[in-house]
Amino acid sequence: MNVQDELILDAQATDVLFLEARTANSWADGEISEQTLQAIYALTRMAPTAMNTQPLRISWIRSAEARARLVAHMSEGNQAKTLTAPLVAVLSYDTDWHELMPTTAPHAAGMIPTFAANHALRQGMAANNAHIQAGFFIMAARAAGLAAGPMGGFDASGIDAEFNSGTQRKAFLVVNLGRPNGIVDRDRLHRLEFDAATQTL
Amino acid sequence: MNVQDELILDAQATDVLFLEARTANSWADGEISEQTLQAIYALTRMAPTAMNTQPLRISWIRSAEARARLVAHMSEGNQAKTLTAPLVAVLSYDTDWHELMPTTAPHAAGMIPTFAANHALRQGMAANNAHIQAGFFIMAARAAGLAAGPMGGFDASGIDAEFNSGTQRKAFLVVNLGRPNGIVDRDRLHRLEFDAATQTL
Repeated sequence: MNVQDELILDAQATDVLFLEARTANSWADGEISEQTLQAIYALTRMAPTAMNTQPLRISWIRSAEARARLVAHMSEGNQAKTLTAPLVAVLSYDTDWHELMPTTAPHAAGMIPTFAANHALRQGMAANNAHIQAGFFIMAARAAGLAAGPMGGFDASGIDAEFNSGTQRKAFLVVNLGRPNGIVDRDRLHRLEFDAATQTL
Repeated sequence: MNVQDELILDAQATDVLFLEARTANSWADGEISEQTLQAIYALTRMAPTAMNTQPLRISWIRSAEARARLVAHMSEGNQAKTLTAPLVAVLSYDTDWHELMPTTAPHAAGMIPTFAANHALRQGMAANNAHIQAGFFIMAARAAGLAAGPMGGFDASGIDAEFNSGTQRKAFLVVNLGRPNGIVDRDRLHRLEFDAATQTL
Protein backbone atom coordinates (compact mmCIF):
# COMPACT_ATOMS: atom_id res chain seq x y z
CA MET A 1 0.00 0.00 0.00
CA ASN A 2 1.38 3.37 -1.09
CA VAL A 3 -0.08 6.03 1.21
CA GLN A 4 0.00 8.82 -1.36
CA ASP A 5 -1.99 6.74 -3.87
CA GLU A 6 -4.93 6.75 -1.46
CA LEU A 7 -5.01 10.52 -0.92
CA ILE A 8 -6.52 13.50 -2.71
CA LEU A 9 -3.95 15.69 -0.96
CA ASP A 10 -0.82 16.35 -3.00
CA ALA A 11 2.46 14.85 -1.78
CA GLN A 12 3.96 18.18 -0.74
CA ALA A 13 1.02 18.94 1.52
CA THR A 14 1.06 15.41 2.92
CA ASP A 15 4.72 15.79 3.81
CA VAL A 16 4.36 19.29 5.31
CA LEU A 17 1.37 18.40 7.46
CA PHE A 18 1.90 14.74 8.33
CA LEU A 19 4.79 12.63 7.15
CA GLU A 20 7.80 14.94 7.33
CA ALA A 21 6.69 17.29 10.10
CA ARG A 22 8.64 17.01 13.32
CA THR A 23 8.33 18.49 16.77
CA ALA A 24 10.89 21.31 16.71
CA ASN A 25 13.23 22.43 19.46
CA SER A 26 15.46 24.84 17.53
CA TRP A 27 14.59 27.38 14.88
CA ALA A 28 15.55 29.46 11.90
CA ASP A 29 15.66 33.23 12.34
CA GLY A 30 12.65 35.27 11.40
CA GLU A 31 9.76 37.10 12.99
CA ILE A 32 6.26 35.66 12.96
CA SER A 33 3.87 38.35 11.83
CA GLU A 34 0.49 39.19 13.26
CA GLN A 35 -1.03 38.23 9.89
CA THR A 36 0.45 34.75 10.17
CA LEU A 37 -1.12 34.30 13.60
CA GLN A 38 -4.47 35.42 12.22
CA ALA A 39 -4.18 32.89 9.41
CA ILE A 40 -3.29 30.10 11.84
CA TYR A 41 -6.35 30.95 13.88
CA ALA A 42 -8.55 31.21 10.78
CA LEU A 43 -7.74 27.55 10.03
CA THR A 44 -7.80 26.34 13.64
CA ARG A 45 -11.26 27.67 14.27
CA MET A 46 -12.77 25.44 11.57
CA ALA A 47 -12.24 22.35 13.74
CA PRO A 48 -15.47 20.53 14.59
CA THR A 49 -16.37 20.67 18.28
CA ALA A 50 -19.32 19.22 20.18
CA MET A 51 -22.26 21.60 19.77
CA ASN A 52 -19.77 24.06 18.23
CA THR A 53 -18.51 24.84 21.74
CA GLN A 54 -15.05 26.06 20.58
CA PRO A 55 -13.52 26.09 24.08
CA LEU A 56 -9.94 26.76 22.87
CA ARG A 57 -8.36 30.08 23.88
CA ILE A 58 -4.89 31.10 22.74
CA SER A 59 -2.45 33.46 24.43
CA TRP A 60 0.29 34.53 22.01
CA ILE A 61 3.39 35.25 24.10
CA ARG A 62 5.22 38.00 22.22
CA SER A 63 6.77 40.38 24.76
CA ALA A 64 9.97 39.64 26.68
CA GLU A 65 8.10 40.37 29.89
CA ALA A 66 5.35 37.82 29.20
CA ARG A 67 7.95 35.29 28.06
CA ALA A 68 9.80 35.58 31.36
CA ARG A 69 6.58 35.11 33.32
CA LEU A 70 5.79 32.00 31.28
CA VAL A 71 9.24 30.42 31.48
CA ALA A 72 9.16 30.60 35.27
CA HIS A 73 6.34 28.03 35.24
CA MET A 74 7.84 25.65 32.69
CA SER A 75 9.51 22.47 33.85
CA GLU A 76 13.29 22.72 33.91
CA GLY A 77 13.75 20.61 30.79
CA ASN A 78 11.43 22.88 28.79
CA GLN A 79 12.69 26.30 29.91
CA ALA A 80 15.45 26.73 27.31
CA LYS A 81 13.10 25.72 24.48
CA THR A 82 10.46 28.20 25.59
CA LEU A 83 13.06 30.95 25.97
CA THR A 84 14.52 30.55 22.49
CA ALA A 85 11.40 29.89 20.39
CA PRO A 86 10.50 32.81 18.08
CA LEU A 87 6.96 32.78 19.48
CA VAL A 88 5.08 30.75 22.09
CA ALA A 89 1.37 30.00 22.26
CA VAL A 90 -0.31 29.04 25.53
CA LEU A 91 -3.40 26.95 24.77
CA SER A 92 -6.16 27.04 27.37
CA TYR A 93 -9.73 25.82 27.45
CA ASP A 94 -12.55 27.99 28.70
CA THR A 95 -14.85 26.11 31.06
CA ASP A 96 -17.40 28.92 30.65
CA TRP A 97 -17.93 28.21 26.95
CA HIS A 98 -21.68 27.91 27.58
CA GLU A 99 -21.92 31.69 27.99
CA LEU A 100 -21.18 32.04 24.27
CA MET A 101 -23.85 29.56 23.17
CA PRO A 102 -26.30 32.28 22.02
CA THR A 103 -23.81 32.98 19.21
CA THR A 104 -21.99 29.65 18.83
CA ALA A 105 -24.98 27.33 19.15
CA PRO A 106 -28.22 29.32 18.95
CA HIS A 107 -30.12 26.13 18.02
CA ALA A 108 -29.16 24.64 21.40
CA ALA A 109 -29.38 27.73 23.59
CA GLY A 110 -32.17 26.08 25.55
CA MET A 111 -29.52 23.86 27.12
CA ILE A 112 -27.60 26.76 28.67
CA PRO A 113 -29.19 26.32 32.13
CA THR A 114 -28.29 22.62 32.12
CA PHE A 115 -24.66 23.38 31.38
CA ALA A 116 -24.57 26.36 33.75
CA ALA A 117 -25.56 24.03 36.59
CA ASN A 118 -22.90 21.39 35.86
CA HIS A 119 -19.32 22.64 36.06
CA ALA A 120 -17.80 19.14 35.86
CA LEU A 121 -19.64 18.41 32.61
CA ARG A 122 -18.50 21.73 31.15
CA GLN A 123 -14.91 21.16 32.18
CA GLY A 124 -14.79 17.67 30.65
CA MET A 125 -16.31 18.90 27.39
CA ALA A 126 -13.95 21.88 27.37
CA ALA A 127 -10.83 19.74 27.84
CA ASN A 128 -11.84 17.15 25.25
CA ASN A 129 -12.91 19.56 22.54
CA ALA A 130 -10.00 21.95 23.07
CA HIS A 131 -7.61 19.04 22.53
CA ILE A 132 -9.25 18.27 19.17
CA GLN A 133 -8.78 21.97 18.36
CA ALA A 134 -5.15 21.69 19.48
CA GLY A 135 -4.65 18.99 16.84
CA PHE A 136 -5.99 21.42 14.25
CA PHE A 137 -3.81 24.22 15.68
CA ILE A 138 -0.63 22.17 15.18
CA MET A 139 -1.72 21.44 11.60
CA ALA A 140 -2.56 25.08 10.98
CA ALA A 141 0.87 26.20 12.19
CA ARG A 142 2.47 23.74 9.77
CA ALA A 143 0.23 25.00 6.97
CA ALA A 144 1.69 28.45 7.66
CA GLY A 145 5.23 27.09 7.27
CA LEU A 146 5.98 26.89 10.96
CA ALA A 147 7.11 24.00 13.10
CA ALA A 148 5.29 23.41 16.35
CA GLY A 149 6.77 22.11 19.57
CA PRO A 150 3.91 21.18 21.94
CA MET A 151 4.86 20.69 25.59
CA GLY A 152 2.89 19.45 28.57
CA GLY A 153 5.61 19.92 31.17
CA PHE A 154 4.64 23.01 33.17
CA ASP A 155 2.89 24.16 36.32
CA ALA A 156 -0.61 24.74 34.97
CA SER A 157 -1.91 26.53 38.07
CA GLY A 158 1.07 28.89 37.93
CA ILE A 159 0.39 29.71 34.28
CA ASP A 160 -3.30 30.19 35.04
CA ALA A 161 -2.43 32.65 37.82
CA GLU A 162 -0.24 34.61 35.37
CA PHE A 163 -2.40 34.63 32.27
CA ASN A 164 -5.90 33.34 33.07
CA SER A 165 -6.72 35.02 36.39
CA GLY A 166 -10.30 36.15 36.80
CA THR A 167 -11.50 33.66 34.18
CA GLN A 168 -12.47 29.99 34.02
CA ARG A 169 -9.68 29.31 31.51
CA LYS A 170 -7.24 26.49 32.19
CA ALA A 171 -3.90 26.17 30.43
CA PHE A 172 -3.34 22.69 28.98
CA LEU A 173 -0.59 22.92 26.34
CA VAL A 174 2.30 25.27 25.60
CA VAL A 175 3.38 25.30 21.96
CA ASN A 176 6.70 26.71 20.71
CA LEU A 177 6.40 28.10 17.20
CA GLY A 178 8.99 29.09 14.64
CA ARG A 179 10.35 28.37 11.20
CA PRO A 180 12.08 25.00 11.16
CA ASN A 181 15.87 25.04 10.73
CA GLY A 182 16.01 21.42 9.66
CA ILE A 183 17.84 20.27 12.78
CA VAL A 184 16.19 17.38 14.59
CA ASP A 185 17.35 16.16 17.96
CA ARG A 186 16.80 12.49 17.39
CA ASP A 187 15.17 9.92 15.17
CA ARG A 188 11.39 9.89 15.16
CA LEU A 189 9.99 7.67 17.87
CA HIS A 190 8.22 4.47 16.86
CA ARG A 191 4.64 4.75 15.72
CA LEU A 192 2.22 1.90 16.35
CA GLU A 193 1.43 -0.25 13.34
CA PHE A 194 -2.06 -0.44 11.84
CA ASP A 195 -2.76 -3.83 13.39
CA ALA A 196 -1.53 -2.72 16.83
CA ALA A 197 -3.80 0.31 17.04
CA THR A 198 -6.87 -0.62 15.01
CA GLN A 199 -9.28 -3.53 14.63
CA THR A 200 -11.89 -4.22 11.95
CA LEU A 201 -15.25 -5.52 13.12
CA MET B 1 -5.45 39.81 5.71
CA ASN B 2 -5.81 37.13 3.04
CA VAL B 3 -5.44 33.74 4.74
CA GLN B 4 -3.98 31.97 1.72
CA ASP B 5 -1.21 34.58 1.36
CA GLU B 6 0.16 33.51 4.77
CA LEU B 7 0.29 29.77 3.99
CA ILE B 8 2.73 27.42 2.33
CA LEU B 9 -0.16 25.00 1.77
CA ASP B 10 -1.81 25.31 -1.63
CA ALA B 11 -5.37 26.64 -1.79
CA GLN B 12 -6.88 23.28 -2.78
CA ALA B 13 -5.38 21.58 0.25
CA THR B 14 -6.43 24.45 2.52
CA ASP B 15 -9.99 24.11 1.30
CA VAL B 16 -10.11 20.31 1.54
CA LEU B 17 -8.66 20.19 5.05
CA PHE B 18 -9.88 23.37 6.68
CA LEU B 19 -11.98 26.01 5.00
CA GLU B 20 -14.46 24.05 2.90
CA ALA B 21 -14.66 20.83 4.90
CA ARG B 22 -17.97 20.22 6.61
CA THR B 23 -19.28 17.69 9.07
CA ALA B 24 -21.21 15.28 6.86
CA ASN B 25 -24.50 13.55 7.56
CA SER B 26 -25.26 12.10 4.12
CA TRP B 27 -22.98 10.50 1.60
CA ALA B 28 -22.15 9.61 -1.97
CA ASP B 29 -22.11 5.93 -2.93
CA GLY B 30 -18.88 4.03 -2.84
CA GLU B 31 -16.99 1.53 -0.75
CA ILE B 32 -14.08 2.58 1.43
CA SER B 33 -11.22 0.20 0.82
CA GLU B 34 -8.92 -1.38 3.37
CA GLN B 35 -6.04 0.51 1.72
CA THR B 36 -7.76 3.83 2.35
CA LEU B 37 -8.12 2.98 6.03
CA GLN B 38 -4.45 2.07 6.21
CA ALA B 39 -3.54 5.41 4.63
CA ILE B 40 -5.75 7.32 7.07
CA TYR B 41 -4.04 5.57 9.93
CA ALA B 42 -0.58 6.16 8.43
CA LEU B 43 -1.23 9.91 8.62
CA THR B 44 -3.07 9.86 11.95
CA ARG B 45 -0.27 8.11 13.74
CA MET B 46 2.17 10.95 13.02
CA ALA B 47 0.36 13.20 15.53
CA PRO B 48 2.57 14.35 18.39
CA THR B 49 1.53 12.95 21.77
CA ALA B 50 3.02 13.43 25.24
CA MET B 51 5.98 11.06 25.57
CA ASN B 52 4.80 9.46 22.31
CA THR B 53 2.04 7.71 24.26
CA GLN B 54 -0.27 7.22 21.23
CA PRO B 55 -3.31 6.20 23.29
CA LEU B 56 -5.74 6.29 20.32
CA ARG B 57 -7.30 2.98 19.27
CA ILE B 58 -9.67 2.68 16.31
CA SER B 59 -12.41 0.13 15.70
CA TRP B 60 -13.47 0.17 12.04
CA ILE B 61 -17.12 -0.92 11.97
CA ARG B 62 -17.53 -2.72 8.66
CA SER B 63 -19.91 -5.65 9.17
CA ALA B 64 -23.69 -5.29 9.39
CA GLU B 65 -23.60 -7.20 12.64
CA ALA B 66 -21.11 -4.83 14.29
CA ARG B 67 -23.01 -1.84 12.91
CA ALA B 68 -26.23 -3.03 14.55
CA ARG B 69 -24.46 -3.51 17.85
CA LEU B 70 -23.04 0.01 17.63
CA VAL B 71 -26.25 1.74 16.60
CA ALA B 72 -28.05 0.31 19.65
CA HIS B 73 -25.83 2.50 21.85
CA MET B 74 -26.07 5.71 19.82
CA SER B 75 -28.38 8.47 20.98
CA GLU B 76 -31.64 8.57 19.06
CA GLY B 77 -30.69 11.62 17.02
CA ASN B 78 -27.50 9.92 15.81
CA GLN B 79 -28.84 6.45 14.98
CA ALA B 80 -29.91 7.16 11.39
CA LYS B 81 -26.56 8.81 10.59
CA THR B 82 -24.61 5.87 11.97
CA LEU B 83 -26.82 3.39 10.11
CA THR B 84 -26.39 5.02 6.71
CA ALA B 85 -22.71 6.05 6.77
CA PRO B 86 -20.52 3.96 4.41
CA LEU B 87 -18.16 3.22 7.29
CA VAL B 88 -18.00 4.11 10.97
CA ALA B 89 -14.94 4.43 13.20
CA VAL B 90 -15.18 4.12 16.96
CA LEU B 91 -12.32 6.06 18.56
CA SER B 92 -11.21 4.88 21.99
CA TYR B 93 -8.27 5.70 24.22
CA ASP B 94 -6.26 2.98 25.92
CA THR B 95 -5.59 3.80 29.57
CA ASP B 96 -2.95 1.06 29.58
CA TRP B 97 -0.72 2.89 27.08
CA HIS B 98 2.19 2.63 29.54
CA GLU B 99 2.52 -1.08 28.77
CA LEU B 100 3.76 -0.14 25.28
CA MET B 101 6.40 2.33 26.52
CA PRO B 102 9.30 -0.08 25.92
CA THR B 103 8.62 0.38 22.18
CA THR B 104 6.92 3.82 22.06
CA ALA B 105 9.16 5.64 24.56
CA PRO B 106 12.24 3.54 25.35
CA HIS B 107 14.05 6.69 26.57
CA ALA B 108 11.41 7.06 29.31
CA ALA B 109 10.80 3.43 30.18
CA GLY B 110 12.11 4.11 33.69
CA MET B 111 8.83 5.90 34.36
CA ILE B 112 6.66 2.84 33.71
CA PRO B 113 6.31 1.98 37.44
CA THR B 114 5.21 5.55 38.19
CA PHE B 115 2.49 5.39 35.54
CA ALA B 116 1.53 1.82 36.44
CA ALA B 117 0.76 3.00 39.98
CA ASN B 118 -1.41 5.96 38.93
CA HIS B 119 -4.51 5.05 36.93
CA ALA B 120 -6.03 8.54 37.16
CA LEU B 121 -2.90 10.12 35.69
CA ARG B 122 -2.86 7.58 32.88
CA GLN B 123 -6.55 8.10 32.13
CA GLY B 124 -6.18 11.88 31.95
CA MET B 125 -3.16 11.66 29.66
CA ALA B 126 -4.93 9.06 27.52
CA ALA B 127 -8.04 11.19 27.06
CA ASN B 128 -6.12 14.39 26.30
CA ASN B 129 -3.65 12.91 23.86
CA ALA B 130 -6.22 10.75 22.08
CA HIS B 131 -8.28 13.87 21.41
CA ILE B 132 -5.26 15.53 19.76
CA GLN B 133 -4.94 12.36 17.68
CA ALA B 134 -8.66 12.60 16.87
CA GLY B 135 -8.03 16.03 15.37
CA PHE B 136 -5.37 14.47 13.16
CA PHE B 137 -7.74 11.57 12.32
CA ILE B 138 -10.41 13.93 11.02
CA MET B 139 -7.77 15.70 8.91
CA ALA B 140 -6.41 12.39 7.63
CA ALA B 141 -9.87 11.26 6.55
CA ARG B 142 -10.28 14.50 4.62
CA ALA B 143 -6.85 14.02 3.06
CA ALA B 144 -8.15 10.69 1.77
CA GLY B 145 -11.14 12.40 0.15
CA LEU B 146 -13.64 11.46 2.83
CA ALA B 147 -15.92 13.59 4.92
CA ALA B 148 -16.00 12.92 8.64
CA GLY B 149 -18.99 13.21 10.93
CA PRO B 150 -17.76 13.07 14.54
CA MET B 151 -20.42 12.42 17.18
CA GLY B 152 -20.30 12.44 20.96
CA GLY B 153 -23.90 11.40 21.56
CA PHE B 154 -23.77 7.75 22.63
CA ASP B 155 -23.73 5.48 25.67
CA ALA B 156 -19.97 5.07 26.13
CA SER B 157 -20.22 2.27 28.68
CA GLY B 158 -22.51 0.36 26.34
CA ILE B 159 -20.06 0.71 23.46
CA ASP B 160 -17.19 -0.32 25.74
CA ALA B 161 -19.10 -3.45 26.75
CA GLU B 162 -19.62 -4.31 23.05
CA PHE B 163 -16.20 -3.51 21.61
CA ASN B 164 -13.69 -2.87 24.42
CA SER B 165 -14.47 -5.60 26.95
CA GLY B 166 -11.48 -7.11 28.69
CA THR B 167 -9.37 -4.03 27.97
CA GLN B 168 -8.78 -0.62 29.53
CA ARG B 169 -10.00 1.09 26.36
CA LYS B 170 -12.70 3.75 26.60
CA ALA B 171 -14.75 4.91 23.61
CA PHE B 172 -14.83 8.72 23.30
CA LEU B 173 -15.88 9.59 19.75
CA VAL B 174 -17.81 7.88 16.96
CA VAL B 175 -16.95 9.15 13.49
CA ASN B 176 -19.08 8.51 10.40
CA LEU B 177 -16.97 8.31 7.25
CA GLY B 178 -17.86 8.46 3.58
CA ARG B 179 -17.41 10.37 0.39
CA PRO B 180 -19.18 13.72 0.59
CA ASN B 181 -22.22 14.17 -1.63
CA GLY B 182 -22.16 17.95 -1.38
CA ILE B 183 -25.38 18.15 0.61
CA VAL B 184 -25.12 20.15 3.82
CA ASP B 185 -27.90 20.29 6.36
CA ARG B 186 -27.46 23.90 7.35
CA ASP B 187 -25.17 26.91 7.22
CA ARG B 188 -21.91 26.59 9.08
CA LEU B 189 -22.23 27.67 12.68
CA HIS B 190 -20.48 30.85 13.79
CA ARG B 191 -16.78 30.63 14.54
CA LEU B 192 -15.27 32.90 17.18
CA GLU B 193 -13.28 35.83 15.83
CA PHE B 194 -9.53 36.17 16.41
CA ASP B 195 -10.00 38.81 19.11
CA ALA B 196 -12.65 36.76 20.92
CA ALA B 197 -10.55 33.61 21.22
CA THR B 198 -6.97 34.89 21.40
CA GLN B 199 -4.95 37.53 23.22
CA THR B 200 -1.42 38.84 22.58
CA LEU B 201 0.80 39.37 25.60
